[in-house]
Amino acid sequence: MPSTTLTPVGETRVGPGPAEYERHFRGALERLHGERRYRVFADIERISGRFPTAKWRRPDGTVTEITVWCSNDYLGMGQHPEVVGAMTETATRCGVGAGGTRNIAGNTSPLVDLERELADLHGKEAGLVFTSGYVSNQAGISTIAKLIPDCLILSDAFNHNSMIEGVRHSGCDKIIFRHNDLGHLEELLRAAGDRPKLIVFESVYSMDGDVAPIGAICDLAARYGAMTYLDEVHAVGLYGERGAGIAERDGVMHRVDVIEGTLAKGFGCVGGYITASAAICDAVRSFAPGFIFTTALPPAVAAAARASVRYLKRSGAERAAHQRQAAATKAALTAAGLPVLATETHIVPVMVGDAELCKAAADHLLECHGIYIQPINYPTVPRGTERLRITPSPFHGVAHIETLTAALVETWETLDLPRAGTVFVEAAE
Amino acid sequence: MPSTTLTPVGETRVGPGPAEYERHFRGALERLHGERRYRVFADIERISGRFPTAKWRRPDGTVTEITVWCSNDYLGMGQHPEVVGAMTETATRCGVGAGGTRNIAGNTSPLVDLERELADLHGKEAGLVFTSGYVSNQAGISTIAKLIPDCLILSDAFNHNSMIEGVRHSGCDKIIFRHNDLGHLEELLRAAGDRPKLIVFESVYSMDGDVAPIGAICDLAARYGAMTYLDEVHAVGLYGERGAGIAERDGVMHRVDVIEGTLAKGFGCVGGYITASAAICDAVRSFAPGFIFTTALPPAVAAAARASVRYLKRSGAERAAHQRQAAATKAALTAAGLPVLATETHIVPVMVGDAELCKAAADHLLECHGIYIQPINYPTVPRGTERLRITPSPFHGVAHIETLTAALVETWETLDLPRAGTVFVEAAE
Repeated sequence: MPSTTLTPVGETRVGPGPAEYERHFRGALERLHGERRYRVFADIERISGRFPTAKWRRPDGTVTEITVWCSNDYLGMGQHPEVVGAMTETATRCGVGAGGTRNIAGNTSPLVDLERELADLHGKEAGLVFTSGYVSNQAGISTIAKLIPDCLILSDAFNHNSMIEGVRHSGCDKIIFRHNDLGHLEELLRAAGDRPKLIVFESVYSMDGDVAPIGAICDLAARYGAMTYLDEVHAVGLYGERGAGIAERDGVMHRVDVIEGTLAKGFGCVGGYITASAAICDAVRSFAPGFIFTTALPPAVAAAARASVRYLKRSGAERAAHQRQAAATKAALTAAGLPVLATETHIVPVMVGDAELCKAAADHLLECHGIYIQPINYPTVPRGTERLRITPSPFHGVAHIETLTAALVETWETLDLPRAGTVFVEAAE
Repeated sequence: MPSTTLTPVGETRVGPGPAEYERHFRGALERLHGERRYRVFADIERISGRFPTAKWRRPDGTVTEITVWCSNDYLGMGQHPEVVGAMTETATRCGVGAGGTRNIAGNTSPLVDLERELADLHGKEAGLVFTSGYVSNQAGISTIAKLIPDCLILSDAFNHNSMIEGVRHSGCDKIIFRHNDLGHLEELLRAAGDRPKLIVFESVYSMDGDVAPIGAICDLAARYGAMTYLDEVHAVGLYGERGAGIAERDGVMHRVDVIEGTLAKGFGCVGGYITASAAICDAVRSFAPGFIFTTALPPAVAAAARASVRYLKRSGAERAAHQRQAAATKAALTAAGLPVLATETHIVPVMVGDAELCKAAADHLLECHGIYIQPINYPTVPRGTERLRITPSPFHGVAHIETLTAALVETWETLDLPRAGTVFVEAAE
């Protein structure tokens, strides 16, 4: 029984007061300001049918039309009529929320159908949808690794924060292998001997736009008896015959044990997923707290995501246009002497190398040119490699690219930013 | 530079093979089956405008209409015309996804407006929205506690898994106080001396339906210099003059430092949030990986949630009807001799006390009576206290309650389940 004795509230306080607590939070924010990495979010209203044009609501409330050049809705699928139509039709028919966790009243038919669609996309037995890609990595990696006794996780040095959290959360031993370095990975696998191992890595690394040698990593996994967990969040919808990602493009999808993806980028919606064997998905479903104890994605979101996946399975036109416009953007910026990081993919990083200048460049582009490119500073990228990360889409046409190029050249001149040929070195921590 | 030396794939494998890995996952699932706690999700399709009626898709594909008695869409706001209308209107105007993280292109105007609405709801300086209530607790508690040097967390023994994960994730020292036990809490606070402390607790505990003495906990916090973090997920929308929860009802909202809530239950949508001082929200916004590195909620979801919050601020009719129907349900089930757990709130637990019988009762209700109540077994509740958790809504009328009562009585007789008066004891682990 709860006891009810309670000392009356006296005049003397024992511990810290409200002002002292508040000081900790203000102090933390002041440190960010001091390091020039306090983040200000631009207030953007998307306009369906006019992507990449959007409305920017300034802090004073005035609204300006701008061009978005940093969206991860890579193909503009968030405004595709079939996707929007699926959302509005399902919301009208089923209402908004799922009404509960997957176990308690929230397992709606559109979500069940979406999981089948995703399993089919990646050629796996099953799929499992989470509220976000972040949660899918955090819950997926930690649960899978925990269920393998004495598992050693080998994790690429450039893995996303959500994967790092998944690895950490598992409580398993982990070793970091140098980014995309097969020699180092093999060395570590060999040293681990015959103990169970899980290799976790991404296909497209979102900040540098480079690609993992998936097939070669699968070769190593087969040789050294490791499981493979591949994050394709920056590739699903965008690569492969049916949009299943780089592993599909490279013909090695069947060799990867777990493929994780997002519904939020190429597919233009929100949510994340894993696809794998039926037993793996069922085990994660049954044991992952981050899956069990959370409300399911709304049926309307699931239906929209499924419409997007289905559409991109059959249509390659968006993927082709995406690659074409990304190449055209890179070519135009490179020809203008801007320090474009050479990438194999659709991601176009233009290097600045300084947090304050990077923020200044982004502010200048937005205020003077109506071009929205968020500055990418530490901790998203290492200090010294701050950049503007540009993401062309099929809807960024020739005129958009010309305007962008001119605006960047003017910004680079005005702020005296580094030109092509500059070497950007990660600052020591 | 990545090295390229790579041993050719040989015939000898060093570590475990695919079948060995698979065996771990199958084994884990077999253990669940053995303990009779393998969970099967019913496949439900909600029907907007006809809540609590829904379609149940059986494993064989046939569809039956059923009555949902376990939804956490407590007020049926997921099908409210203003809420559905806000979703479809915003999806049509802005598209489906947010297009990026809050920092990178995903900070849409509907989300900014929603945060202002939530801050106003709870009378706080600021609000911060997360992809789920789970993430808001996990990221909110861990980030707040980490930013307070040498913080000791005092956590109620019955806190939700998402709060436990937040506490664990903070890496801070923690002590569990006995559920709602003010004497024990005071004892622990006194023993902690003048070090910084954070008390984390819920208002309505969702499985037993009991309520925390928020004001008295705030008294203790003031006396012993502790911060307070209150989870109101099973109360927002449902209690208080404007639906801000139990703290509003009790007139102590201003005394709680951080109020966390969900958009998924009383508000009928999806997502979670905290409201607090501007500095606290800004600090969590700036430091929480689970907030920073994830795609923002879709504008259409934010708009739907805001419509729901605004509606429930001005209308108390749903809250009154909810309490009335919950009381009527409790009265009817109690009069029929069913072992209803006495609760102060809208939650109506009917005790079974055995995992297998609980599942059998739920299966029988669904198959023979078209009544859907998910069985609640370990780990959601302690072993020995398995139950059916019934959640009446304003849309569960007199006829629904009569049908439910008769179905439960028949089920209790058929399966010979424990009647009112039975004492249910938590099994030792």
